[in-house]
Parts: sequence; C-alpha cells; structure tokens
Amino acid sequence: MFKKYNVIVVGGGHAGCEAAAAAANLGSSVLLITMNMATIAQMSCNPAMGGVAKGQIVREIDAMGGYSGIIADKTTLQFRMLNRSKGPAMWSPRSQNDRMRFAEEWRLQLEALPNIDIWQDTVKEIIVKDGKANGVVTSLGLAIEGDAVVLTNGTFLNGTIHIGEKRFGGGRTGEKAATGLTEQLVASGFQSGRMKTGTPPRVDGRSLDYTKMEEQWGDDERGRFSFTDVTLPTEQRCCWITYTNEAVHETLKEGFEKSPMFTGRIKGLGPRYCPSIEDKINRFAERDRHQIFVEPEGWKTVEIYVNGFSTSLPEDVQLKALHLIPGFEHARMFRPGYAIEYDYFPPMQLDLTLETHRIKHLFFAGQINGTTGYEEAASQGFIAGINAHQRINDLHELILKRSESYIGVLIDDLVTKGTEEPYRMFTSRAEHRLLLRQDNADARLTPIAHQLGLVSDERLEQVKQKVASADLIVEHLRTHSIDTEAINPVLQELHTSPLTQKTRLFHILTRPQVSIADIARADSTLANLLARYDKAVIEQAEIKVKYDSYFEKEIEIVNKMRRMEDQEINPDFDYTNLVSLSKEAREKLIKVKPRTLGQASRISGVSPSDISVLMVHMS
Amino acid sequence: MFKKYNVIVVGGGHAGCEAAAAAANLGSSVLLITMNMATIAQMSCNPAMGGVAKGQIVREIDAMGGYSGIIADKTTLQFRMLNRSKGPAMWSPRSQNDRMRFAEEWRLQLEALPNIDIWQDTVKEIIVKDGKANGVVTSLGLAIEGDAVVLTNGTFLNGTIHIGEKRFGGGRTGEKAATGLTEQLVASGFQSGRMKTGTPPRVDGRSLDYTKMEEQWGDDERGRFSFTDVTLPTEQRCCWITYTNEAVHETLKEGFEKSPMFTGRIKGLGPRYCPSIEDKINRFAERDRHQIFVEPEGWKTVEIYVNGFSTSLPEDVQLKALHLIPGFEHARMFRPGYAIEYDYFPPMQLDLTLETHRIKHLFFAGQINGTTGYEEAASQGFIAGINAHQRINDLHELILKRSESYIGVLIDDLVTKGTEEPYRMFTSRAEHRLLLRQDNADARLTPIAHQLGLVSDERLEQVKQKVASADLIVEHLRTHSIDTEAINPVLQELHTSPLTQKTRLFHILTRPQVSIADIARADSTLANLLARYDKAVIEQAEIKVKYDSYFEKEIEIVNKMRRMEDQEINPDFDYTNLVSLSKEAREKLIKVKPRTLGQASRISGVSPSDISVLMVHMS
Repeated sequence: MFKKYNVIVVGGGHAGCEAAAAAANLGSSVLLITMNMATIAQMSCNPAMGGVAKGQIVREIDAMGGYSGIIADKTTLQFRMLNRSKGPAMWSPRSQNDRMRFAEEWRLQLEALPNIDIWQDTVKEIIVKDGKANGVVTSLGLAIEGDAVVLTNGTFLNGTIHIGEKRFGGGRTGEKAATGLTEQLVASGFQSGRMKTGTPPRVDGRSLDYTKMEEQWGDDERGRFSFTDVTLPTEQRCCWITYTNEAVHETLKEGFEKSPMFTGRIKGLGPRYCPSIEDKINRFAERDRHQIFVEPEGWKTVEIYVNGFSTSLPEDVQLKALHLIPGFEHARMFRPGYAIEYDYFPPMQLDLTLETHRIKHLFFAGQINGTTGYEEAASQGFIAGINAHQRINDLHELILKRSESYIGVLIDDLVTKGTEEPYRMFTSRAEHRLLLRQDNADARLTPIAHQLGLVSDERLEQVKQKVASADLIVEHLRTHSIDTEAINPVLQELHTSPLTQKTRLFHILTRPQVSIADIARADSTLANLLARYDKAVIEQAEIKVKYDSYFEKEIEIVNKMRRMEDQEINPDFDYTNLVSLSKEAREKLIKVKPRTLGQASRISGVSPSDISVLMVHMS
Repeated sequence: MFKKYNVIVVGGGHAGCEAAAAAANLGSSVLLITMNMATIAQMSCNPAMGGVAKGQIVREIDAMGGYSGIIADKTTLQFRMLNRSKGPAMWSPRSQNDRMRFAEEWRLQLEALPNIDIWQDTVKEIIVKDGKANGVVTSLGLAIEGDAVVLTNGTFLNGTIHIGEKRFGGGRTGEKAATGLTEQLVASGFQSGRMKTGTPPRVDGRSLDYTKMEEQWGDDERGRFSFTDVTLPTEQRCCWITYTNEAVHETLKEGFEKSPMFTGRIKGLGPRYCPSIEDKINRFAERDRHQIFVEPEGWKTVEIYVNGFSTSLPEDVQLKALHLIPGFEHARMFRPGYAIEYDYFPPMQLDLTLETHRIKHLFFAGQINGTTGYEEAASQGFIAGINAHQRINDLHELILKRSESYIGVLIDDLVTKGTEEPYRMFTSRAEHRLLLRQDNADARLTPIAHQLGLVSDERLEQVKQKVASADLIVEHLRTHSIDTEAINPVLQELHTSPLTQKTRLFHILTRPQVSIADIARADSTLANLLARYDKAVIEQAEIKVKYDSYFEKEIEIVNKMRRMEDQEINPDFDYTNLVSLSKEAREKLIKVKPRTLGQASRISGVSPSDISVLMVHMS
C-alpha cells in the first residue's frame, strides 16, 4: 500500500526530523515513521537548545541547511551567548524554548517539505536484502520498501523507566517502548548495550516563590542560532536560579537505599556531564550546594523544568527535597523525575557516514549511537540523512573533518573510539576548537552544503560576501595607521598605555582592552567603512584581528596533520597480512575500518609504530 | 506526598477537564490525574465541536460556566449554524477546530484555575473507606487521598485497538491502555461491559485534489458557542465534501472477511449513529454513495480528517478504497482508521447526580457511562464535577430536568434506561426540544448556575437583561399596529398576501415569510426600538413571536407532567413490600432508585399501573 521510498526514517525526534528533512531536500522521497504524530520533535528533557559546544553544533547544522536552529529561533523564550567573557572559540549560543511551539514548528516544517510523507506506526524489523537494508516491517505488520533506512529510536528501544524501586516499560513517561528491533539486529550480529539517562521533575510554577530566586534574563541584544533571516519572537521570558543546600542533600540521601542507580538495578551508564542530583551529591560530596535553573516550559504554561535536579529517587523523596530549596517550599510536582534505560548500539559498528558496517544502506543517528543531547542527535540525523541519499544515488559521501566542524569531531569520536557512556560534546573534545567557532560556522560549512545542493546559490553568495567584507575590513586595518593625538585619548579612557608613534590600526586592535568600535571613534575613515557593514561582518573582522596569531598557529597545525588526515585508507583493506602490526591494532583496525591514516591514529590501541607500519605500507 | 484533595478527577479528556474546572470553580481543591500532560483535552476523533443536539449541549455547558464553548470558540476554523432552514429548535451550532490549539487552550485554561493541581500518572485503584471513595492509588504506587473521585477514563480502560485482523492494547493509537480499575470495580460488584468506537484514517492534505470536491465554508456571519465575549479567530478555513461510490463500496467489501466487526472479533457494540463506512455499506445496501466531509485538522497543518470514513478494515483496503473517492485518487495516509473496544459501566448503576449507587462519593462521566461524543462527555463531566463538590460539602445536588436541558435528558436517559450501545444525543430524544433551544440556553440555565455560584452576578444580570429586552420587544409588537399602506408594499415584495386592515405587528410577524427586520423597514418606531438592542435580543424576540403558540402548548405539557416530575421519591425507598407492583417493576425500581415519579415512569418495564401503585402509596 506504500510506494517504494528512497529513504525511510524511523523516529520523529531531533535526529529523525533532521534526517528526513536533509534527505528530502536532496531529492529523496522520504517516509518518516513515528509512533505518535502528536509528539513529533518533542523536547523530551530540557526546554532548551544549544549551550557550550552544543550551540556551535546547532550553528553548524544551520549553516548547512538543517532546521534545528530555525525552529529554535522561532520558539525562543530567551537567548544567551554563553562565555562572552572568554575567547570567541568559547562563545556558545543557548536558547530557552517553548516546548509545545518547538514541536509544532518542526511538524509544520516537515509538512512543508513535499518529499516527506509521514506514517504513524512502530517499526519492528528491518528488511534486509543482499546485505542491504531494503525497508521496514511495522507493528501493523506492514512491509514498507525503502532503499535506505535511518534508525533514530532515541530512548525507545526496550525503554525501561525507573522511579525509586518502581520500574515499568516506556520510551518516555506516558509513552510506549519499542520492541523487536534490537533483537533482530543482535541476531544479525550487531552488538548492543544499555545506557541510561534521566530527567528532573516538572513542577507547577504557581507553587513557586520567585522572590527567593535570582532572576536570569536573556541577552539584551538578542542573538540567534540561524544564519537565515527567520523572525524571532519579540518578547523574552525570565528564568530563575536557586540552589540546593545541605538539608536538601541530606534528604535526598534518605532515598539512596531505594535508588535504582545505587542499588544496581540500573545497569546502563548515564551521562557523566549531565548527572542526576544524587550523583552530584555522591561524587562531589565536598560541595555544599548545587545550582538549580528554574526554566519555564513555554510562553503561557505554568509548567516549570527543574534543570539540575534530574533524579530517579522515589517521588516522595524528590518532593521532600525540593521543598527545602529556596523558592520551592510549597512546590507541587506535575510529575516526578525518572531515569530511563534503553538499548544503544556501540558506534564503532558504524562508518564515518553513519552507515552500519554490517548492513549496508542502514544508518544510525542519535541516542541509538550512545550520545546524549538534542544537538548531538540532530547533527547525526542530518549527516545520516545526507549520506543515506548520497549512498543510494552513488554520490560522494559527506564526511566532515575534525578540523572543520564539531559535527566531524562528534562522529569521528563515536566511530573511532566508541563510547560506553552517553557521549556529550564539549569544546575540549575539539583539538581545533579555535577554528570551530559559532561565528564562522557558515564560512566553514555553507560551501560544503552548497556543493551537495542543500543550500541555494544566493545563500552561498551571502556567506562569501560576509567573508570578503570581513577580509576587506581586516585589510583596511592592516594598511591604515592612526596618529597618536587621535588615538591616545581613547586609549587613555580604556586604561591602556598611550602610543608614542603612528601605529597600524590592526596592531592597536590586538590589545584586549580595545574594540574595533573604540578605534572607529577616533578614526572617521574606519567609522565610515564600518557603517557599510552589519554587525556580524564587523564582529568577524574583529575576531580575525584579535586572535590572528592563534588562528595562524592553529591552521599551521591543521596543515601539518593534513598529511595523515588526507591519506585515505580503503575501508575494506585487509589488515590480516600486515604482520608488523600489533595484534591489538590489527583487531581494532579490522573493527573500525578507518577511512584515513588520521582516523587510524586515533583508535585506542593503535600506536605510533603501528601508524608507521601503515604509512610505509601505503606509500 | 500529596495534600488531601476535595475532588480527584481521573482522566484529562473533555469530561475530565470540565469536571475539574467545575469542582474547582465551586471552591474544591482538585487534582486532575492524566496519563500524559501533553495530551490533555485531545480531540481523539473529529476536529469539531457541536452539531445537531450536541451544539445545544455545548451552549448549555457554556450557559452554566463551563469552558467547552469558550475553548471551541477560541480555536474555531469555521462555524456553521446547522438546520437554519428549519424551526429554531433545530438550529444547531457546529464548529471545526484546530486540534492542537484546542488541546493547548484547555490546558492553559486548567492552569489558570488556582484550585486545580495536575499529576501525570495512571490510576489503578479507587481507595474505598466506609463505602465511600476516599482517594486513588496510581501506577507509581502512590495513594492520594480525596473526598470524592470522578472517573472519566474514556476509551482507555482495557482499550483494545483493531485494524483488520490485527489487535493490540492501547487507549488511543500510539497511547497506552489503563488496566486495574475495571477489575477492582467488578470485584466490588459493579457490572461492566464492552463498547467499541472507531475513527477514520488521517490523510495528507497535500495528496488530495480539492478541485474534485465541493467547497464548504462556514457561515458568513460568524456564530459562536459561548455567551461570553471570548474573541474568535478572524479567519475561516475551508472544508470540502466528496462522496463514495459503488467502486469504493465494492473495494471495501473485499476487506469484510478480515473485518474485526463482521468476523465477531469485536464484541462491543459501536455507535449506531456514527457508523463505520463498512457498517453503512452493509446496513444501507441500497445507497450508492455516502457523503465524506474532508476536514482540516488545524490552521496550518496539512493533516486531514476523513469524516464519514470511520473504519477498522485492513489498512491496505482502507487506502485502496480511499483512492477511488473523487479527489482522493493519490491520497496518502498518515495513519489508518481503527476501531477500539473499551470497558464501560452500564449507567443504570448511577444516580442522576452521576454518583455511583454502590460506592458513594464516586462519580462516573463520559464514555465510561456508555456515551459517545465530546459534548455528551463534557456535559457529564461538568455535572459530575459540580455534584462531587456539592456532595462532599453537603450542599444540594444538581439534577437538571428533562424539561429544562438536553443535559437533563442525557443523564436521565442514561441512568433511567441504561444503554447498550454508545449513546449519542439527538433532538428527538428531548420531548420538550421546542423549549431546549440553543438560543435560550442562557435563559434556561444561567440562573441555576448562578445559584450554585458558578456564574457571576454580572453575567446573570446580562441574561436577565436579554430576556427582559426581548420581552419588551414582544410587548411592543403585541401592542402596536401598522396601517395597511405602510406594510402592504413590504408584504407584496415578500410574496405574501396584503392586509385589508390595520393589524398588530405581532400578528404580521407570525407569517413565515416575514421577518422582524421586514416589519421594521415599514415601521420606524419599531426600527428605532430595535436599534437599541443587539442581534441576539432581537432574534430572541422574533423566535418568541413566531413560535409563540407552539411554545405555549409545550409549556402546558411540561406543566401537566410537572406533577409527576416534581413528585419526589426517596431513592432509598424499600420497594420490596409494595406487593402490588409487578415483579419486573420492583426489580427495576430497586436497581434504578428513581428520584421522581416521572423518572420511575420512564423505566422500561415499569407500567402505568405500577406508577398508579406508587402514586397511591406516595400520597
């Protein structure tokens, strides 16, 4: 009863939505299968997008024509650029979002893409023909043909919810789990594991006393994720900060003996950097308080997300402890926090395209690969959707480099090193993070997306213009000097030492205290030049100047490593006869099937001498 | 971990929302327990409110301070007053609604009522103490105390979904069923049964060819449900009409051997007046086509509800048959239609207050009582919520009479006669329907709601004003005459015979061709008078005049019957010793526990001679 689709996407979360949209925009006919059309693009956990390193990922998706940034911008309750006081590599955009609106906008976005059909059902089985995924079988018993299949099952595969000593099946609270798929894949030789994640209680905002908390507003000058001209909501909504205390911790400890984490009932590992409150108390016993972010779930709803209080302790302990937090004395819960265990597939079973080694034309994206976070999921979905389309059309695959994107780092890490606990992105994971900034995601990635056909000529042109304009400003700064009489008053005002001779503007701008706007105050030619460009362009120029020497060094390193990164290896290369390799290296290389010498060098257990062996052999 | 609530409402559908709101507005502290906060007030089936007799119910709820009309008005895609060409007793308001917005507005409305708390969980058990409901136990194992409990479980109790030969548990597609409650209640002596209902497939509006269908717009002059001044959306959205044909029917018949209805796999009876398409083909074999209403699910979504095509045939048969309907040649489904079987409790186990006979302080409302329809459910919830509050505060109960409301008819029918198939309201069920009009719901019921404290003095005053103003206009028409020269040109224009002498305006207006506006054109004094009143008032006066003689007769009948209706019977009256009663009458009277002689007379099996026996005994 279905036509044959090019790409079937299983799951309608962040990964599934981006996968479906990317494949459809490339021209594939796509079927998105979701358990419940009413919950497409649900923000299952916090009502927010972005954050440190994650915000950069959203910008990267946006720069390449994905929608996560656009949807986030349309539904922003407030927006903040985190780490503004640090270097630009650390600047990280983050938004609070209206949960209902976010889901609705994604749904409408998918409906607006003519190549996407939607089917409400649950996938039980992958159809495999000649070693290739060829469709799916649903719980309605339907066999639906597709040239490629992208699995984005989130926490639904054999999901088990834990609250205290209670345990029940479910993919999210109030929703069913999905069964069958893991069993089939394991029977076909896949290795699966269990992970866990958790979510805090949701409380009734009417029961909170906000006067006891600190207000937290978004940035006055509103930022945004998207490089497109999507319209932002005009108003912002306030968030609040409060803190736990010793009494809260003592109360929570009363529940430890019933904790599914501490009693061993939960086997899967949870996200280290997004720990439950009981975990934090346990691991950081010396800390007498932890921050709690009090986040509204939408423009109008009174529902509040208690960020920082993820927990699977018994619900009565949750409430009792909440009541000891300033402002939460009379808090009422809408629902308790809980932990959820689910199946994942260790990602070393994947190629860098996110296609599985074992079954061709089958792609995995999101939590099924052992990651945590909407942004990590969305970016994998985006790449999987692209590669599914490219693969079935015999087009070149998309593998982003570690030196050009966080998405490249993410996927390379997953595929090359695997992960045994939910993988979250950090700036520290990216060795070239100085180059992978939120501000230049478009310059880095829009040309690549344009080549794929995901981005219009016009949009590429705009990016080129932006880069060229910034370069022109930099060039102006390099080539123009200013007299001491003109600049010294400004320098004095900024408490930085005066100049003794005419100096290049570029040189002055490298002083940390001095902004380009400061110089423009003293230099009308520069002021006139800047007046011709918008903020993003000027900021770009400023960053280029201020961090010029760092960037140069970084680029040098990238170039040095390029020899290894560009040295391709045939993924089907037969390592068995390379006797000079260590046994462990041989095993790992066979398992990971690295695409480059660079990737091979990052595999744990592959030593520099193993790499030398490979280099010798390759050349 | 919970405070003790006054009223616990189980279920967040139409019945549950109205029940919670009514009890809360009367001053009870209310806990609404819902399986999933994201699906509060889901329109599970068609995205529409009202219709023949049902629209009157919505107006009645609104007149008493309920919210169904307000929420429907806020989210109206289009509005039509059905049966405008018939007498005013038949006029029935109906709206198409945005499904997502409807649910959202209800959720926000509930959040806006300070006495309502919400808890996401599933109720497994009623706590009973001294024969009274005293709280609930949830699937999280929580015992929550409440003085009264209102069950509004919809189709979730042991819900089983059928599509062709497939069958699986679920309260709606994609959602879990609820277990435990039926078992407990049956163990306590309740009788339960199975019913079934169904829903059509949802299709992708992008795949339809609307040029092959008839457009159907709402009324130009927008009506509304609510008597309040809620703001309506400014735009309307179009619906369409198309038809099945012989080829569609033949194709559907191919699936009959796999039909869960025809093969006996579904035991429960479905709604006779909302039949599945296979039922229609079967029962009305002589008809060569059936109407299909093509209804959008919202302002922006492409999802379409295929009204008139409810089915549980195999999904491939559904699609194949859909493709033979003009405009649906290339239709793609989002999900198939399905049938659902669920537990209900035959409603003769209830008092007219909707409290159960067997367990005091326990109320049932909605599909659990064997009804079908959002409006029927909402009105029961509203009454149950009120009576739960009144009951636990020893305040007088609310029992609406058959002569004053459709809601009274509905509940009296259910409780007195029971129902073995899903009960739907019709105008024909109301013997006094001439008096139970949509236009006078406020005059009939707002005073009652005001007495309860559900409606403000101001609102009552407005209703009184409206009635008084209409009466004043009627009085003017009664006491003023018009000369033949003035009125005859108008009468001629309306193709009705000219007058030969000066005549009372009232008399002229009784002519079917003549409207009050027509007379006003010829009579400036009347025109000036009318200019002082708004449309609803003038319409009221016009209806009063035009149907004056019918209303008088109807009121006479009501008064005659009042003797029986007002003759109260103690519900705990012991019929066992009334030997002159027939055996069947005695059994039925003991079972139903009628509140009045009138109610007793409507019990099937209670004969006029049994009523005589009772009358003699009572007096």
